[in-house]
Amino acid sequence: MKIGILGTGMVGRALAEKLTSLGHDVRIGTRAPAETMARKEPDPIMGTAPFATWHASHATVPLVTFRDAARHGEVVFNATSGQATPEALRLAGEEALADKVLVDISNSRDFTKGMPPVLIVANTDSLGEQVQRALPRTKVVKTLNTVNAQVMVNPASLAGGEHTLFMSGNDAAAKATVRALLCEGFGWRDVLDLGDITTARGTEMYLPLWINLWMSLKTASFSIKVIR
Amino acid sequence: MKIGILGTGMVGRALAEKLTSLGHDVRIGTRAPAETMARKEPDPIMGTAPFATWHASHATVPLVTFRDAARHGEVVFNATSGQATPEALRLAGEEALADKVLVDISNSRDFTKGMPPVLIVANTDSLGEQVQRALPRTKVVKTLNTVNAQVMVNPASLAGGEHTLFMSGNDAAAKATVRALLCEGFGWRDVLDLGDITTARGTEMYLPLWINLWMSLKTASFSIKVIR
Repeated sequence: MKIGILGTGMVGRALAEKLTSLGHDVRIGTRAPAETMARKEPDPIMGTAPFATWHASHATVPLVTFRDAARHGEVVFNATSGQATPEALRLAGEEALADKVLVDISNSRDFTKGMPPVLIVANTDSLGEQVQRALPRTKVVKTLNTVNAQVMVNPASLAGGEHTLFMSGNDAAAKATVRALLCEGFGWRDVLDLGDITTARGTEMYLPLWINLWMSLKTASFSIKVIR
Repeated sequence: MKIGILGTGMVGRALAEKLTSLGHDVRIGTRAPAETMARKEPDPIMGTAPFATWHASHATVPLVTFRDAARHGEVVFNATSGQATPEALRLAGEEALADKVLVDISNSRDFTKGMPPVLIVANTDSLGEQVQRALPRTKVVKTLNTVNAQVMVNPASLAGGEHTLFMSGNDAAAKATVRALLCEGFGWRDVLDLGDITTARGTEMYLPLWINLWMSLKTASFSIKVIR
């Protein structure tokens, strides 16, 4: 399948590597490809290695603009941060994303007010709903936003994959497409459909508990299983 | 142990029954005991049976005022709704709760703006923090707020108790007291200490996901297990 990925951070890279290994035709998008390739320093916030370092061992994945990645993909992943998402989607363009499935993974943490970080949107709205409103012709599916990048693409690394992922979106066919990628591709075994895109509020508001758990457990390699 | 319970709804009743069965000396508090006993109709929101119906089979549990329940307890449970909590604690009185452990279970759903309900406080503050600020001499421990009343007191009813409960609070000795009640009393096996009372934001903001799960699973009898 032709897949576009928006965002060159840890999440975009993990998805690109995994999807390529599964035989998909992947392009990864950024605002200015030449600038992204020229960067020599690790990311100042997350400490992620420069993109060029990663790309040296993943050279088959073309680095293109947000627009070209969006045009390329039958399914497009938004792996930009919540704060960068509006601008990334504007640059990708409503036309390039029309009628496509957009998997929205964005999470929004605002560290400018100190610890613990607060969400930039919560309670009465969500990033998932904002993305769907901004792109009315796109089929937005919110998922993968409750686990870190390594768990996203390798759920079997925890308890043999016996834990739960959530999914929100308005389009049943789009959710079926994403479910197949998640289960047959990544190995997820328990993907719970929560309902329409407003249910993204629930998974996005789980982030503060995720951060608490990250601090308490001293690892980001964890997930939750819904016991019923 | 002498235990006071504030609130006569489903949560207060489940706690009173369980704690009494464990041999504790329990009193349950309400704003106006005579009015609570006189009510003949089910609760208009939750459909809970009138208190007198429950009390007929639990007559050994004295129904008293919020203040008398607070005075009685060495450990006091706040089982009122988030919206009723400020008034209930004002009526209980700072003096009656001074130097005591207050287990805060409150959750705040505001249905007045339609579905899905929104939280009355989120993101930059929490009910747990508000309660601790209102009662600076009280040792507030936020817990039990991520599961329904039956799961609270009978965790073994799900997967033999193999799921996770969270705890937030500023006082280590208070958390140890509460942990003993939860584990040795109720049978919880995985109680995760998230840190100080600000971490109550995380578990309180889990409520929208809890509501999504309740809707999807069509049962309130579920919990989550942290897989690590």
